Amino acid sequence: MSRTVIHGGLVVTASDEIHADVLVEGGRIAALAAHGTEAAAGWTADRTIDATGKYVIPGGVDAHTHMEMPFGGTYAADTFETGTRAAAWGGTTTIVDFAIQSVGRSLREGLDAWYAKADGNCAIDYAFHMILADVNESSLKEMDLLVAEGVTSFKLFMAYPGVFYSDDGQILRAMQRAESNGGLIMMHAENGIAIDVLVEQALAAGRTDPRYHGDVRKVALEAEATHRAIQLARVAGSPLYVVHVSADEALAEIAAARHRGLPVFGETCPQYLFLSTDNLAEPDFEGAKYVCSTPLRPKEHQDALWRGLRNNELQVVSTDHCPFCFSGQKEMGRGDFSKIPNGMPGVENRMDLLHQAVVDGHISRRRWIEIACASPARMFGLYPKKGTIAPGADADIVIYDPAARQTISAETHHMNVDYSAYEGRQLTGQVETVLSRGEVVIDRRTYTGRAGHGMYTPRATCQYLN
Amino acid sequence: MSRTVIHGGLVVTASDEIHADVLVEGGRIAALAAHGTEAAAGWTADRTIDATGKYVIPGGVDAHTHMEMPFGGTYAADTFETGTRAAAWGGTTTIVDFAIQSVGRSLREGLDAWYAKADGNCAIDYAFHMILADVNESSLKEMDLLVAEGVTSFKLFMAYPGVFYSDDGQILRAMQRAESNGGLIMMHAENGIAIDVLVEQALAAGRTDPRYHGDVRKVALEAEATHRAIQLARVAGSPLYVVHVSADEALAEIAAARHRGLPVFGETCPQYLFLSTDNLAEPDFEGAKYVCSTPLRPKEHQDALWRGLRNNELQVVSTDHCPFCFSGQKEMGRGDFSKIPNGMPGVENRMDLLHQAVVDGHISRRRWIEIACASPARMFGLYPKKGTIAPGADADIVIYDPAARQTISAETHHMNVDYSAYEGRQLTGQVETVLSRGEVVIDRRTYTGRAGHGMYTPRATCQYLN
Amino acid sequence: MSRTVIHGGLVVTASDEIHADVLVEGGRIAALAAHGTEAAAGWTADRTIDATGKYVIPGGVDAHTHMEMPFGGTYAADTFETGTRAAAWGGTTTIVDFAIQSVGRSLREGLDAWYAKADGNCAIDYAFHMILADVNESSLKEMDLLVAEGVTSFKLFMAYPGVFYSDDGQILRAMQRAESNGGLIMMHAENGIAIDVLVEQALAAGRTDPRYHGDVRKVALEAEATHRAIQLARVAGSPLYVVHVSADEALAEIAAARHRGLPVFGETCPQYLFLSTDNLAEPDFEGAKYVCSTPLRPKEHQDALWRGLRNNELQVVSTDHCPFCFSGQKEMGRGDFSKIPNGMPGVENRMDLLHQAVVDGHISRRRWIEIACASPARMFGLYPKKGTIAPGADADIVIYDPAARQTISAETHHMNVDYSAYEGRQLTGQVETVLSRGEVVIDRRTYTGRAGHGMYTPRATCQYLN
Amino acid sequence: MSRTVIHGGLVVTASDEIHADVLVEGGRIAALAAHGTEAAAGWTADRTIDATGKYVIPGGVDAHTHMEMPFGGTYAADTFETGTRAAAWGGTTTIVDFAIQSVGRSLREGLDAWYAKADGNCAIDYAFHMILADVNESSLKEMDLLVAEGVTSFKLFMAYPGVFYSDDGQILRAMQRAESNGGLIMMHAENGIAIDVLVEQALAAGRTDPRYHGDVRKVALEAEATHRAIQLARVAGSPLYVVHVSADEALAEIAAARHRGLPVFGETCPQYLFLSTDNLAEPDFEGAKYVCSTPLRPKEHQDALWRGLRNNELQVVSTDHCPFCFSGQKEMGRGDFSKIPNGMPGVENRMDLLHQAVVDGHISRRRWIEIACASPARMFGLYPKKGTIAPGADADIVIYDPAARQTISAETHHMNVDYSAYEGRQLTGQVETVLSRGEVVIDRRTYTGRAGHGMYTPRATCQYLN
Repeated sequence: MSRTVIHGGLVVTASDEIHADVLVEGGRIAALAAHGTEAAAGWTADRTIDATGKYVIPGGVDAHTHMEMPFGGTYAADTFETGTRAAAWGGTTTIVDFAIQSVGRSLREGLDAWYAKADGNCAIDYAFHMILADVNESSLKEMDLLVAEGVTSFKLFMAYPGVFYSDDGQILRAMQRAESNGGLIMMHAENGIAIDVLVEQALAAGRTDPRYHGDVRKVALEAEATHRAIQLARVAGSPLYVVHVSADEALAEIAAARHRGLPVFGETCPQYLFLSTDNLAEPDFEGAKYVCSTPLRPKEHQDALWRGLRNNELQVVSTDHCPFCFSGQKEMGRGDFSKIPNGMPGVENRMDLLHQAVVDGHISRRRWIEIACASPARMFGLYPKKGTIAPGADADIVIYDPAARQTISAETHHMNVDYSAYEGRQLTGQVETVLSRGEVVIDRRTYTGRAGHGMYTPRATCQYLN
Repeated sequence: MSRTVIHGGLVVTASDEIHADVLVEGGRIAALAAHGTEAAAGWTADRTIDATGKYVIPGGVDAHTHMEMPFGGTYAADTFETGTRAAAWGGTTTIVDFAIQSVGRSLREGLDAWYAKADGNCAIDYAFHMILADVNESSLKEMDLLVAEGVTSFKLFMAYPGVFYSDDGQILRAMQRAESNGGLIMMHAENGIAIDVLVEQALAAGRTDPRYHGDVRKVALEAEATHRAIQLARVAGSPLYVVHVSADEALAEIAAARHRGLPVFGETCPQYLFLSTDNLAEPDFEGAKYVCSTPLRPKEHQDALWRGLRNNELQVVSTDHCPFCFSGQKEMGRGDFSKIPNGMPGVENRMDLLHQAVVDGHISRRRWIEIACASPARMFGLYPKKGTIAPGADADIVIYDPAARQTISAETHHMNVDYSAYEGRQLTGQVETVLSRGEVVIDRRTYTGRAGHGMYTPRATCQYLN
Repeated sequence: MSRTVIHGGLVVTASDEIHADVLVEGGRIAALAAHGTEAAAGWTADRTIDATGKYVIPGGVDAHTHMEMPFGGTYAADTFETGTRAAAWGGTTTIVDFAIQSVGRSLREGLDAWYAKADGNCAIDYAFHMILADVNESSLKEMDLLVAEGVTSFKLFMAYPGVFYSDDGQILRAMQRAESNGGLIMMHAENGIAIDVLVEQALAAGRTDPRYHGDVRKVALEAEATHRAIQLARVAGSPLYVVHVSADEALAEIAAARHRGLPVFGETCPQYLFLSTDNLAEPDFEGAKYVCSTPLRPKEHQDALWRGLRNNELQVVSTDHCPFCFSGQKEMGRGDFSKIPNGMPGVENRMDLLHQAVVDGHISRRRWIEIACASPARMFGLYPKKGTIAPGADADIVIYDPAARQTISAETHHMNVDYSAYEGRQLTGQVETVLSRGEVVIDRRTYTGRAGHGMYTPRATCQYLN
Repeated sequence: MSRTVIHGGLVVTASDEIHADVLVEGGRIAALAAHGTEAAAGWTADRTIDATGKYVIPGGVDAHTHMEMPFGGTYAADTFETGTRAAAWGGTTTIVDFAIQSVGRSLREGLDAWYAKADGNCAIDYAFHMILADVNESSLKEMDLLVAEGVTSFKLFMAYPGVFYSDDGQILRAMQRAESNGGLIMMHAENGIAIDVLVEQALAAGRTDPRYHGDVRKVALEAEATHRAIQLARVAGSPLYVVHVSADEALAEIAAARHRGLPVFGETCPQYLFLSTDNLAEPDFEGAKYVCSTPLRPKEHQDALWRGLRNNELQVVSTDHCPFCFSGQKEMGRGDFSKIPNGMPGVENRMDLLHQAVVDGHISRRRWIEIACASPARMFGLYPKKGTIAPGADADIVIYDPAARQTISAETHHMNVDYSAYEGRQLTGQVETVLSRGEVVIDRRTYTGRAGHGMYTPRATCQYLN
């Protein structure tokens, strides 16, 4: 069994910052020893990585990606191969992607299709959530099987009528099932029925530019759906995880539920923390690059989201990575914002953007690791294999240079998409070296991984409910 | 023009308590004069009513009744004739009943049917709200016509899928229309889609007794729908009137909206103030007598409702009078609570029950008149013709004996229904004499009115929005 | 007994708007009759006032004035004579002024001094609250006597240590006494102990301009004291009336208490509705004109206060009239804002400014009368003698021209002070004629009253607690 | 340097649960290695502790003790020697005790007195907070020196007028100073001025039993003071730590502040989680055993506190250990509850009671360690030396047997007090072995430590503010 030692760095986890050397045996972390102790000095290794002046952090866990996702007649531009490679470049070593049930089909069929898409193609480890697009007696029963199989979370949509939409009865039934089988319901919380009325009215009134995407998907309708999901979960006795929270009022609903002691959780994404409706209003259809749902919000919402992250009213930052090229894909919506494929690239940028938030004083260093690594791992049953640096954990480790400077650009990024939502943004901090289960997949900013190294990782149930 | 003088009483309105004599000329109140003044002494009259020791109050305005309403294969047991006569007995001189649009039919057709049912049959004045059961382009346009015609409020249902239910898009559209034409949206706020799941599950589990009606129609689902209706109204920019609020949490949503300055109003009913789930749990299927929706709640909710009435977080107490006989009608639901016709009698009891609340210290005397007469009249565009005692107002006047004792009973009440929800309850206070537009319809507890005296009264728009 | 008829106007009260003629017999309103009825036509009168096209409203009740008040080594510039005359000009026919206990002296002594100041000097009726500056066993006992005598409200200060300040123990004891004798505690709610630290620090740092008066008297410290007063009242079981609420957060505390059902009331003043810290920051020491406590707040607070007035979270608008001339009085604070006498003129402007709020859409016409006439009368036990137009009430009546235009100016106002806080402001609406107990004191904008007409009016206890 | 290996246990920290062996070199933790790995197998040691089937947890950090504290003419019964020995028995390896400034004296003098009391007497490590009893220019300046010296937190009292009480101006000044020097203000939040009025009234009315101690120290007055402290901290821009939160409403104030993003923290104690006013009402003066301030509350409050601990609205559980013997000390208050010395024993029971809460499902195993070890260490600048098991940390380690059963009793406890507040309570879980800086002080339930082993530990500033 090969042995690697990472020495001299500052090990940062969700809870600790320690000057420790890390011993990797095979794919696992075998030991941590205080730097300079006899214990550390005694280690021999096949490979030694000098992390002096660097952070040694857990590989990122991105709990919300959509590789190769079909949407609006096209597909998200990153395959599992390109997307997971980009993730590795960005210091993320696990993704949880969404397998999709088609209406009229079984969960099994959808899940198997996603197993097939990913199998043999991934640079890093991966797992799956299941999107329930057709809640019925049969699919409810299948939920139990999936939980047993390691697919322990199920996404429902209160938006997108006619596509992914579930009505409140279907939602309630799925929540009841989750309550009994230990699954976690993830909710896209927007009142899609009402939004579709506003979309139709906006288009009829000639308001077709991308900015109107943000206009019709109102804060009040995200807050409404969030409140409704919480009340349905209360009735079902189930936990609830609200994805991509973007609006201050939606966050307030989550905070109020948590204050009452309800097992309600919230995720936000870098785009809501760093971008705004100003971007949606960029001229020459450039705003289309920023079309995603929930939509970007006015800048004032960012403060509320940062506060929520500091307070643990929000627990997780994921990317909702779902890239569509501007050319040929986003352009499908010229003249009709409702035809712009919803989604943005980001899997490569998350760890860096959140480190910038540390630099900017929004969050502490430990909280960075907590929201980007430990909490998503715990939320989705991957802990302690993933999300921490501790004896016994998978050796998914990032050597992070906190002083490096970089400029985000589509010209240099590794995602398969022709634009960056953060083009030209200068950041402090950069991934230097990445280990995935002990193998070096990024070596001092050279990709040394391979498609097929990444393994499917079945998951336990949500560890926040223990 | 005949002249009547009512002298010696204490005139109680929503705002004043004055020892004044009242002069009626024809159908209107001509003047009020301080008792004992020259001005009062100078009046001559055809008829003189001595109100010494009594209250002289405006006739009650019951803004929520369902005479002859078809429901679940039967009809509410009171016709316009029997129901309005009972109302007069109880000191109510105006009702606003609900005309119903049938799915696939026009508002016009529904409204005309209700005009026909009432015409020539009523003992007291009446007006109509319109139930929108089928919101579509055509019915939206008709809303404008109805507002112009004096039907200025429109009820929507978030409950009863397949019958009256509107989805959130239909609700939003109707609210937008109301925003533009001055109409007021009245909402039955319960998440009927979720409730129907719970109904099905309860029945499948053998929980078929009336008590389960209260169990499945959960507080959280009334609060949810109330919150949703408020958010939709916010998006539409329209006012909102929530009917039959029964749950403390639903009230809290209304209070929060009002604190934010939104034009949101709430109504409760005597059954929620005086009855509880204890009644629903009465043995031998007696609980069926108390089946209505929203359902009766545990007793603890009563305090919140009284507090809301004192605070003006709730503005109106109506009856939702919708009586079904126990024998033959309520009994349709033996073995299946979902088949029990929803509704309770009450049009005759409202003024007395609320006077009892004055005696019990829940509300002040003026607030009694405000919530039972003045506010419903203002809310629904009947003020100042109805709801007050002031020069120029319709002479709808009740001489009320605050010291009389009575016992409520089906044996003595005048509603066409074989039980009373308040059987055996002893009250202090009783209606003695009632004038409707100057005519005495109850004379010292003898009915002197007639079917056909009551006139249809077109309404202005909600006066709380001026 | 002389008879006056006011005909043709629109009688506006807190609850009604009716086209009615008003008959005054002696000092009282004898009758109201619908305009054009036989009843109205039959009246004969010594004097007839044509109110066609005008409003006929109750005379204003200003529940918070400080005539001739000693403060900081000087006296408020309006005597009872000049101040009540100015009030009459502005359509106010009753003031409730504050008698002051001196530290170490009895309530009796303070009250008698104020009786003497006012006696024979007032143009309109007046009553007194009592300021408790020295809560002790003896003054607590005196409270009972004052309530019996018609001085039914007692003001305490959480600000001004060493002058009017009561500590929390004294406050609690006074509240307990009020709970037992029916008195109403009025609170100046600012944390004066903390504010004095900030004052000292500001002056030490050379921040001596008037603007710093607003800076040190922080929103958080008004909200804090408001919360504290509410909690102490809860412990004592007593009602609470918070004077001159200026901050949105303080209002929120009152609203929350009311939502819980506590008998907590709030007053604001025109200066908080129409002026802001922008005025305090006026150059050349002009800001001193606007120094009062609680201080003016940033403009954003105005919206919250208007909303609170619409919602009935605030019930009363008084003036806190306490004028000091700029020249010689306000100037005492040049170079040290803490030496600027606290207070502003306003008794003449209140009714007009609030009518402007009707014109501007902030409040309805009826709400204007409610917050300026009826609610202060009810709050302080003057109803129904004062605050309404109803048979039996005192004939305190204003003929108000809603279409007249005026420009506020110190050159034309009648208050004894050398500046106006609203100089140059153009308003729509003006007082035309004023009756005080049936006597015309302003006749088509000529003063026809006299010092000594105004009578002391003992008060009942707060009518909101019935 | 001696080496100890602890093998086979489950290492539980605030963030992790791992099967790892722990290597101690000298007084520090040198390394952790996954059990069964080569890395672990290679260790040699002077001493080996078998932790199979046991938890290996950080030693407890009790951030709130009062050894030998003078109070009401007597002294807390535990000396630093007896108290720290009892702490060790209970698995606590660090205490932070309160040095006390006397009125009119310097902080220096008070602190030196406490250094002297503790020096050479402690079984475990200790540090000090400073009680500010006399905030003035001189003591404010001394605060800076103490922070530099490692006494980085300062307790103020809103209760106990005439003893420890600071007025709001003193509080504000101390908070401002803390804002500038990095200190943390700890607040005893009860309105002592108001409480003293209620005490006097209760005694005057003959309500002298211990139960009235709970009666007069009202929930509303704890909530009030908590709100006030938060607002003062907001004005000062300083963080705030509220000690011994016992009331649901006080907790709600803290939660609301945290939701707004304010750096406000809260501590509760086992007595508020496990005991109630039922204990205070025990007959025969037994209630005196439970007299402490804030007082025990009705049982309903316990749920709110547990919820707050789960939500992180409360961060720390300390003991407020301040024992007075029933005989001779508590008895001083027979016939006058206000003379009962305030305080309860508990330093020995905290870790066990909180483990019982894990067994009972109130909190998770990791949260147990967080609130009892890691968070207090972080809050008070002792992390990562104390509060965790990580390479580099002090080897303060407890081998905890989660399956052992014990019964709490004064007969078997080691605190120097003649009663237990938890007499007869059966618990699951018990401390087996304790290491303090690598030395075994409890060895399989035998005390092997010594007075003088414990060292004074200067502290950094609060690590939640980084």
